[in-house]
Amino acid sequence: MEPGDAARLRPGRAARALPPRLLLLLLLLLMPPPLLLGRGLRAAAAASSSSGAAAEDSSAMEELATEKEAEESHRQDSVSLLTFILLLTLTILTIWLFKHRRVRFLHETGLAMIYGLIVGVILRYGTPATSGRDKSLSCTQEDRAFSTLLVNVSGKFFEYTLKGEISPGKVNSVEQNDMLRKVTFDPEVFFNILLPPIIFHAGYSLKKRHFFRNLGSILAYAFLGTAVSCFIIGNLMYGVVKLMKIVGQLSDKFYYTDCLFFGAIISATDPVTVLAIFNELHADVDLYALLFGESVLNDAVAIVLSSSIVAYQPAGLNTHAFDAAAFFKSVGIFLGIFSGSFTMGAVTGVVTADVTKFTKLHCFPLLETALFFLMSWSTFLLAEACGFTGVVAVLFCGITQAHYTYNNLSVESRSRTKQLFEVLHFLAENFIFSYMGLALFTFQKHVFSPVFIIGAFVAIFLGRAAHIYPLSFFLNLGRRHKIGWNFQHMMMFSGLRGAMAFALAIRDTASYARQMMFTTTLLIVFFTVWIIGGGTTPMLSWLNIRVGVEEPSEEDRNERRWQYFRVGVDPDQDPPPNNDSFQVLQGDGQDSARGNRTKQESAWLFRLWYSFDHNYLKPILTHSGPPLTTTLPAWCGLLARCLTSPQVYDNQEPLREEDSDLILTEGDLTLTYGDSTVTANGSSGSHTASTSLEGGRRTKSSSEEALERDLGVGDQKVSSRGTRLVFPQDDNA
Amino acid sequence: MEPGDAARLRPGRAARALPPRLLLLLLLLLMPPPLLLGRGLRAAAAASSSSGAAAEDSSAMEELATEKEAEESHRQDSVSLLTFILLLTLTILTIWLFKHRRVRFLHETGLAMIYGLIVGVILRYGTPATSGRDKSLSCTQEDRAFSTLLVNVSGKFFEYTLKGEISPGKVNSVEQNDMLRKVTFDPEVFFNILLPPIIFHAGYSLKKRHFFRNLGSILAYAFLGTAVSCFIIGNLMYGVVKLMKIVGQLSDKFYYTDCLFFGAIISATDPVTVLAIFNELHADVDLYALLFGESVLNDAVAIVLSSSIVAYQPAGLNTHAFDAAAFFKSVGIFLGIFSGSFTMGAVTGVVTADVTKFTKLHCFPLLETALFFLMSWSTFLLAEACGFTGVVAVLFCGITQAHYTYNNLSVESRSRTKQLFEVLHFLAENFIFSYMGLALFTFQKHVFSPVFIIGAFVAIFLGRAAHIYPLSFFLNLGRRHKIGWNFQHMMMFSGLRGAMAFALAIRDTASYARQMMFTTTLLIVFFTVWIIGGGTTPMLSWLNIRVGVEEPSEEDRNERRWQYFRVGVDPDQDPPPNNDSFQVLQGDGQDSARGNRTKQESAWLFRLWYSFDHNYLKPILTHSGPPLTTTLPAWCGLLARCLTSPQVYDNQEPLREEDSDLILTEGDLTLTYGDSTVTANGSSGSHTASTSLEGGRRTKSSSEEALERDLGVGDQKVSSRGTRLVFPQDDNA
Repeated sequence: MEPGDAARLRPGRAARALPPRLLLLLLLLLMPPPLLLGRGLRAAAAASSSSGAAAEDSSAMEELATEKEAEESHRQDSVSLLTFILLLTLTILTIWLFKHRRVRFLHETGLAMIYGLIVGVILRYGTPATSGRDKSLSCTQEDRAFSTLLVNVSGKFFEYTLKGEISPGKVNSVEQNDMLRKVTFDPEVFFNILLPPIIFHAGYSLKKRHFFRNLGSILAYAFLGTAVSCFIIGNLMYGVVKLMKIVGQLSDKFYYTDCLFFGAIISATDPVTVLAIFNELHADVDLYALLFGESVLNDAVAIVLSSSIVAYQPAGLNTHAFDAAAFFKSVGIFLGIFSGSFTMGAVTGVVTADVTKFTKLHCFPLLETALFFLMSWSTFLLAEACGFTGVVAVLFCGITQAHYTYNNLSVESRSRTKQLFEVLHFLAENFIFSYMGLALFTFQKHVFSPVFIIGAFVAIFLGRAAHIYPLSFFLNLGRRHKIGWNFQHMMMFSGLRGAMAFALAIRDTASYARQMMFTTTLLIVFFTVWIIGGGTTPMLSWLNIRVGVEEPSEEDRNERRWQYFRVGVDPDQDPPPNNDSFQVLQGDGQDSARGNRTKQESAWLFRLWYSFDHNYLKPILTHSGPPLTTTLPAWCGLLARCLTSPQVYDNQEPLREEDSDLILTEGDLTLTYGDSTVTANGSSGSHTASTSLEGGRRTKSSSEEALERDLGVGDQKVSSRGTRLVFPQDDNA
Repeated sequence: MEPGDAARLRPGRAARALPPRLLLLLLLLLMPPPLLLGRGLRAAAAASSSSGAAAEDSSAMEELATEKEAEESHRQDSVSLLTFILLLTLTILTIWLFKHRRVRFLHETGLAMIYGLIVGVILRYGTPATSGRDKSLSCTQEDRAFSTLLVNVSGKFFEYTLKGEISPGKVNSVEQNDMLRKVTFDPEVFFNILLPPIIFHAGYSLKKRHFFRNLGSILAYAFLGTAVSCFIIGNLMYGVVKLMKIVGQLSDKFYYTDCLFFGAIISATDPVTVLAIFNELHADVDLYALLFGESVLNDAVAIVLSSSIVAYQPAGLNTHAFDAAAFFKSVGIFLGIFSGSFTMGAVTGVVTADVTKFTKLHCFPLLETALFFLMSWSTFLLAEACGFTGVVAVLFCGITQAHYTYNNLSVESRSRTKQLFEVLHFLAENFIFSYMGLALFTFQKHVFSPVFIIGAFVAIFLGRAAHIYPLSFFLNLGRRHKIGWNFQHMMMFSGLRGAMAFALAIRDTASYARQMMFTTTLLIVFFTVWIIGGGTTPMLSWLNIRVGVEEPSEEDRNERRWQYFRVGVDPDQDPPPNNDSFQVLQGDGQDSARGNRTKQESAWLFRLWYSFDHNYLKPILTHSGPPLTTTLPAWCGLLARCLTSPQVYDNQEPLREEDSDLILTEGDLTLTYGDSTVTANGSSGSHTASTSLEGGRRTKSSSEEALERDLGVGDQKVSSRGTRLVFPQDDNA
């Protein structure tokens, strides 16, 4: 790679590289002296401050004591953050080492967890327990805890903010380890700071082609599958809990709604490890798309589902009995929040697309990148401010940005934005996984219940099976490209849990049930990431899933580009009576082995969406053709002229879009390119060429030229009808 | 630029671009409905929750009320952050518009402030004042306010954290505007989150060449100048305050230490606007370096100086009298904190350099960038944890990273890190300036005192004059390239205040004096950024400062590359008696007009540093030559072999470093390249070529070849002495 590599092989003066761990150890050794020095300086400052025995002594002392405490608290915050940075640094260096040595059994997330565990052990058993600094006030308040308090301290007023509730058992514990508390974050940090970059990046880096190709299946797995999984796991766990109660292992209340909640949160899969390995080995792209799409969407579904379950509050004395009204209200809340968040995300994506389209911001990559970042972040805040779920909004914003805005960015901004979110994603994800490892030891309210844990493992296994196999069966009835048994097994196997399940579990650990669920979730995550993640590569070969599948190259794609099928025409019907004759093109390609093409219903929705997207949405939001002036009716003329950017007229090669290949395999489409319409019929199988246009714009798109080259057909007479031109059908059809 | 531009000129179908503000207005209009919808959903959820009249009603109600309040609080946080994002978005779009139309009278920071002002007005007079949610507890505590409180609410315990002190006058005010409070950040946010990226970027993007060339002057301006400025302004303000007391305009205490504190914080200059204009117009690079270097370092000095002044606590009854012991303690604290922070920063930079040198992380730009980011962030935390100043540490870390680590990064990582910090810097800076504009209206404790304000303007003017002119005079005694009058006037003019002064002022606004200072600082910042910043371009032409100065191109630099001067040799002395004969090279170039070169004392320290840096530090920390195995004595052999990377032996072109040109103009240096030593003598003026080597390594560096080409000299016999080769002196010398 580098010239230095050649030098390395040279004998004699080859230098021995210092192991990175050695450097880090040096760093650790270097840490204490400055810490002491610094503390010395501060102590000197404080001592000089407090040595003054002035008349204002007492209040000065109070001020200083408060200041000192605030300073000490700040110092501890810094140390705790430093701990995490050290963890992440170690993780990065070890990841490099693993990549260097091609180690695949342990992925970076699993590694981060291990390091978190180690540091957790050190913190738990290594740092001294200090006596609690809390002061208990015995004043009682009438009705509730306010969010801010004003406390009178000898005439001075201090403002306090509500942090949270403390369970009675822990209140009077003298031994409170300050360090452990400092490394324990407010769970909302996950939802407000750490998860958004991860989820946004997932949406923004979606491989659109295969995602949309398998959209129906992905939606089915994500929505129906998660609901099924939640229900089944919930019921199984309820049985386990009942068992525990009988056996006497249950110390406190554990309701059915709690079980359902557990089912919801544990249904959020996060197969990071598996996908990373798929990526590296270039495993089957459809399988990748299915897994990735499912995991990304079921995170969204799990959040909203768990919120809806929590919001389930039936009327009547028993707050945990079934109440149809409350049930439907929960369903309504689910739908409302989900669609609201979806809309927020889509709207922000659309606004960003329009802004980047109509300004020349692409001349200034810094401004463009900053704007992109701000708009994406604003989605989250907007959704949260409106009472929806920020993380879900951010997901759909990412998908929208990838689909529309990305095309408007300058080349430099594209790489800048991708890199920016990639770095944020990387740091946030490894941070969460480190924290998971840490939390096993630093979390002070664990409830380990072997029966529950074993029951949970069985439940998620069965839940996953009930999720994957039946759904795949039904999907295969409609899919052109069946999901084979080995794919289904792989999907079954890839049910890893990760960041989302953890974050949902840690969000509220006030009650006994929630604490038990949190502990169990943690262990499930550990097991699935380490054991199942580690077994991915062997499993891939055992299931004979092909790897090393390259995306078809540019030239291949060009050749197969003009394979069209007719839209919405039942192959058994006659052609429409308006004497249009349609081009018929059909080619061979990778789908020739895929069998029967006449089943169109499963792709109908998609094709409808795709035409709409291509003919209207993309022209509105990006610079791609066809120009709206040609596709919109005449009365929209003014609007069309406003929304069409001049670049469209130059851009006669819209098929450079990545997902154009979708039309090759999915069904019949009517697509308008520039002033030409190419319509294709799927039922007949002859080859015919498209031609250049007469009248209107005579510019030939290069793809048309390529096709003519490929198929060797000359000009043919075309008829013009309004703004659409249709081609005469070949006699062979 | 783009093909689309050509299309734009095409008549007929030219599209009318939607103005960006129109889009934003649309966004604003779209906001209310979702807000209402979302609130409706949440209300429905809450209503269904609270409709249950269960036995656990009261505690459930409490819980829900607390939850609702927490949720409402979260919602308001989101809305306040959204406000800032909107501000930043508007700023970005307007910046683009200004750049598009080449508007230079208003820089982005001034623009951000204006938008902040507008939104501040809207928030202050547009949002309804809501009654305070605070609950006043009348329980008294014995001695002090603890950082955490446990409050007993009907058997439940809630934890509260100390937020801050409230002045008695405001405690009972019924009208508290929640919105205003939500957009008022804890001042520590500036020091912990916003300032570090700005300062790091300043260090990382330092134009090293000119910075180091003017290092002495910059240090003088930054340290001595800031101290002088602080003292003068402090004293002048003390006079003003005394005047105010006599006139009866002073409502509360205002000590001498407060005046000195004001002097310290207001001495932190931030000529962002001026530098941006300099950059755009390519104004004189030395002036740029002086201004930039001074502003960056005096920020650091101002922070530590203000902390030292605050730490000044004399013994005895009068806490504000002069106490020599306390004074020297303050000085000691200043030196200790400054050097401690410097060391932290440098150490982290060095560790990062070593890690990137000895691992092959450059194969993985993502990992490398993430590591770089984490290590830089860790500087801050480390310094804070040790009790030093994080911002100062981060500055020196940035400089160190730019000087060493940058050379070890892969090409992609270099651009990634630069872009990452550029974006963070951009966002943070504009955020702070927006906040400044906002703070004029949202800050609820302003103290407007016309006498003080006018006095402050006069004081900073005089302080700047006392800072610039005398120092320049003394520096010119020693400088080769004098700082001309027009430069001095420009520097005098460029005393803009900005983010640092603001952050230091807002850090503690508890007392009357501090509030007055904060208000005054805000107004000073407004005035200097808008008026003085706006007047930069006219001032540049009025002072006849040349613009459009390009950095010498690569080829120019190559030609003049081999202009060396002898190190440490007094031109009046004889050459050293060891019969070494030295190469003498001297060329013409941009310095020929700069006059006398024999004054070497001012550059001695720099030259000493430069040799040390080039011969030892750079080889240890980067891949540049010369190899340590050649420069270190024999007993360090093992260490040298450990620390030398194999790339060094290939890297015979160390002069590709940016700052190598420094040696062309500064003085005499002995530099070792590979196994060759080129030593140059500044006093004589003849041209001689260097030659290739005999023995040892025979690889010719391309620069040597280039020189031979340029000067047309063939091989000459060289003598070898140990690991250094010296060249025979030309007879012309």
